[in-house]
Amino acid sequence: MGLAVQDARLIEKDGTWDVYIDEGKIKSISEEEDAEKVIDASGKYLSPGFFNTHAHAAMSLFRGVADDRDFWDAWPEIVWPLEENLEAEDVYWGTKLACLEMIKTGTVAFNDMYFFMESALDAVEEMGMKAVLSYGLIDQNDPDKLEEEIEATKKFVEYAEDSHLVKPALGPHAVYTVSREGLEWTADFAEKKDLLVNIHVAETEKERDDFKEEHDCSFTEYLNDVGLLNERIISAHSVWLSPEDIEEFGKNDVTVSHNPSSNMKLGVGKPMDYEAMLDSSVDVTLATDGCVSNNNLDMLEEAKIGALQQKMPGDATLMNAEECYRMMTVKGAEALNYDSGKIEEGKAADLILIEPGVKGVPTHDIRSNLIYSMDGSSVTDVIIDGKVIMEDRKVEGEERIIENATEKAESLVSKVI
Amino acid sequence: MGLAVQDARLIEKDGTWDVYIDEGKIKSISEEEDAEKVIDASGKYLSPGFFNTHAHAAMSLFRGVADDRDFWDAWPEIVWPLEENLEAEDVYWGTKLACLEMIKTGTVAFNDMYFFMESALDAVEEMGMKAVLSYGLIDQNDPDKLEEEIEATKKFVEYAEDSHLVKPALGPHAVYTVSREGLEWTADFAEKKDLLVNIHVAETEKERDDFKEEHDCSFTEYLNDVGLLNERIISAHSVWLSPEDIEEFGKNDVTVSHNPSSNMKLGVGKPMDYEAMLDSSVDVTLATDGCVSNNNLDMLEEAKIGALQQKMPGDATLMNAEECYRMMTVKGAEALNYDSGKIEEGKAADLILIEPGVKGVPTHDIRSNLIYSMDGSSVTDVIIDGKVIMEDRKVEGEERIIENATEKAESLVSKVI
Repeated sequence: MGLAVQDARLIEKDGTWDVYIDEGKIKSISEEEDAEKVIDASGKYLSPGFFNTHAHAAMSLFRGVADDRDFWDAWPEIVWPLEENLEAEDVYWGTKLACLEMIKTGTVAFNDMYFFMESALDAVEEMGMKAVLSYGLIDQNDPDKLEEEIEATKKFVEYAEDSHLVKPALGPHAVYTVSREGLEWTADFAEKKDLLVNIHVAETEKERDDFKEEHDCSFTEYLNDVGLLNERIISAHSVWLSPEDIEEFGKNDVTVSHNPSSNMKLGVGKPMDYEAMLDSSVDVTLATDGCVSNNNLDMLEEAKIGALQQKMPGDATLMNAEECYRMMTVKGAEALNYDSGKIEEGKAADLILIEPGVKGVPTHDIRSNLIYSMDGSSVTDVIIDGKVIMEDRKVEGEERIIENATEKAESLVSKVI
Repeated sequence: MGLAVQDARLIEKDGTWDVYIDEGKIKSISEEEDAEKVIDASGKYLSPGFFNTHAHAAMSLFRGVADDRDFWDAWPEIVWPLEENLEAEDVYWGTKLACLEMIKTGTVAFNDMYFFMESALDAVEEMGMKAVLSYGLIDQNDPDKLEEEIEATKKFVEYAEDSHLVKPALGPHAVYTVSREGLEWTADFAEKKDLLVNIHVAETEKERDDFKEEHDCSFTEYLNDVGLLNERIISAHSVWLSPEDIEEFGKNDVTVSHNPSSNMKLGVGKPMDYEAMLDSSVDVTLATDGCVSNNNLDMLEEAKIGALQQKMPGDATLMNAEECYRMMTVKGAEALNYDSGKIEEGKAADLILIEPGVKGVPTHDIRSNLIYSMDGSSVTDVIIDGKVIMEDRKVEGEERIIENATEKAESLVSKVI
C-alpha cells in the first residue's frame, strides 16, 4: 500500500534510494515495501519541501500594483483601498493562486496572516497544503475595534480547530497597530489554546524610532511585558532589532522569519543582522512575504537573495547554502510545529522532487546549485502529507484557479485604480 | 516566406500582433505577410531577447565549486588551478552549456571574456547565438607575456573576423592585471580594427585602494591616459568608482555593465552607484558575470536582484522595472553594437516568447511581473537573427550538451579538488 518514490538521489546522503510513504509519513528509506503508486525519480533529487514562514497569500491578487514606489506613497493610495474592497471570495481565489504558485515552486507549508481566513483555510485545504493561518488583528488602540477583532479571531480559531493539515494561530499585526490590551489578550489566548503567534516586529527604522518615542523600553522589554516573548512567537522581518533585543530573542526561543526580498524592495536600509542572530542562537527561518512586497512566493529565489544580501557588506561566507537549505526545510518545519522537514522514517511525507536541468549541472555541489542557481521551476513533483499534489509539474485544476483569481483581481483593481 | 509570430501580446504596446520576420530582421508588425513557418503566440508576450553584457561563459563548468568562501581563500586554491587545467575542448563544451542556459532563459546575445576563444566562438556559432567575444589579456607587467597575449588576441580577432553573428572584441582583463603597455596596445588596436573593449574596472574596494597606492591619479585619468576612456569601452562592475570617475564615464560615453549578483556574492561592500550613473547619463546595462560568481546566467533573476539591491539602502523608487527592462534589451543591444533590442521594423529579429504562467498572473503590470516575479523559465521560444533557436522550451541537442559538459567538468574538477 502507500506510495513509493524510486531511484531518488537525496541532498544529504549519497547514492539513490527508494522512499516508501504510508499514512502521510515516511515509512522507510532502505527497506523494500509494497506500494500502490510508484513515482520514478531517476535523475532527480528528493528533498523535504519548503516551509515559508511569513506570507499574506491572498495578496497574490495584487501582484505588481504598487511597484517602484515609496511605501507611504503607494500603499495608502492603492493597497489599503484594495484591501478595503476585499471579500471572502477574493481571499479564497487569491489564496488558491498563492497555493498554486507555492506548490509549483516546492513549498509544502506556510505561515499566513490576512483577512477572511475561513476562506483562506478552505482554499488551503482544497489545495492539500499545510499552513499555519492567522487572522490579522489590528485595533489601532480602539477598544471597540479590539472587541470586534477578538471575536473575528476566536471565530476563525474555532473554524480551524478541526482541520487536519491547517493549524490556527494568532496574528496580532504589529506592536504599532495593536493596543497593549490586544497584545495581552493575544498572549493569554495563545497560552490557553496552545497556539503560535505571528507578528511583524522591527521591520523598518521608522517603526523602531516611533516605538522608541512612544515607549520607554526596548522591543523585547515590551513584548515580555505583554507576554509575547516566548517560543510561540514567529517574529517577521526583525531587521531593526538592537543587539540586546536579538540576545533576548535567543534566550526566549523566539523564531525569526527572515524576508530578504521584501526588506530590500521596501528599502529598509540594511540587511537583518543574521550574524548576531546566529551568535545568540536565534532560530532563523526564511519567507517570501506577500506578493506586493516581493513579488513572488519562490523560496529558492528567496534563499539566493537572502544569502547574497548577507554577503554584500563584505563577508562572503555568511549565510551559506547549507544554512539556507536548513532554514527552508527542517528549521521552517520546527517553527511551524510540523514533525517534518527531514527525510527520516516517521517524519511527515512533505517531499518534493527536483530536476537539476541546465541550471543544476554540473553537480559539483547540489546544495550550491539548489540555492544559488536553480529556482522554483526546477521542482517537478510535490507530495504533501503523503499525497501527490503535483505530478510532472501539473497541479489539478490549475487553469481554473488562474482564470478565477485573475477575474477577481481585475475586478478589485478596477474599483480602486 | 520567412517566419510569422501570430497573436502575440507585446510588452510596450496594447493589443495582439502578428510579427513577420525575414532575412534575420523584423519585416512588419501590422501588415499581413506570407510566412513559411508560423508560431502561435496566443497567451504569450513577444519581447526582444536579453543582452547579457558581461560573462565568462565557459565557467559554467565550475558552477558551485567555490561558494560561501572568501575570494582570496577559494579562487587561488580552486578556481585558478581549474583554469590552468583548461583545454580548448573544455571551453567549447562549457560555452555550449552556458549558451544553452542563456537561450533557455531568454538571452539572445552576450559579451564574453575568457580563454580558448576560438573554441568559444565555434560553440556560440553552433548554438546560433550572437556574442561579442574577447580573449582575456593578462600580462601581469611581464613584457614577454604581453607579446604572447597580443599574439593570442590578434589570432582570435582574425579567427572571428568573418563570423556573421559573433563579433571579436578586445579583453584587457583589468588595470591591475594588464601593464600600461598592454592597455595602450589595446587602445591602438581597438581603434585600428574598430573593436569594442571589455574590461573589469573598480570591482572591489581593495582594487580601488591598491590602484590609489600604485598610481597618482584616478581610474578615469589613467584610462584616459592609455586611450581607454571612450565609447568602445564596456566597463564591468564599476562599483568603486568615485563620483568624479562616474561623471567622466558619462562624458566619454563609456558603457557600464552592472553585475549585481556577482557583486553581492563577492561581498564588494556596497551597491554600484546607479543613481550617480543616471545623473551623469552613463549607459548602464545588465549582466550575470560567470557561473562561479553568480551562479547562473538568468537575466530575469539578475534584474530582480539588481533592482532590489538598489532599493535596499532606502529609495524604493530606484532602478524601476521599466529601466531594468530597457537595460536588458535596447540598452544591452546598443552596448554590444547590435541593431536589435526593440520590436520595430528593420531591427534584427532577436526575440523571445514569454508565457506568464502562475508567477505572471494577474497581469496588472506585465513589466513588473517580468522583472520582479517571473524568471528565465517563463521563456518558451527564442528566435535569434530570425532563426528559431528554442521552440516550446526545447533546444536541439540539449541532452548531449549537458552530458558532455558534465563529463568535461567532472574530469577537470577531479584534477584539482
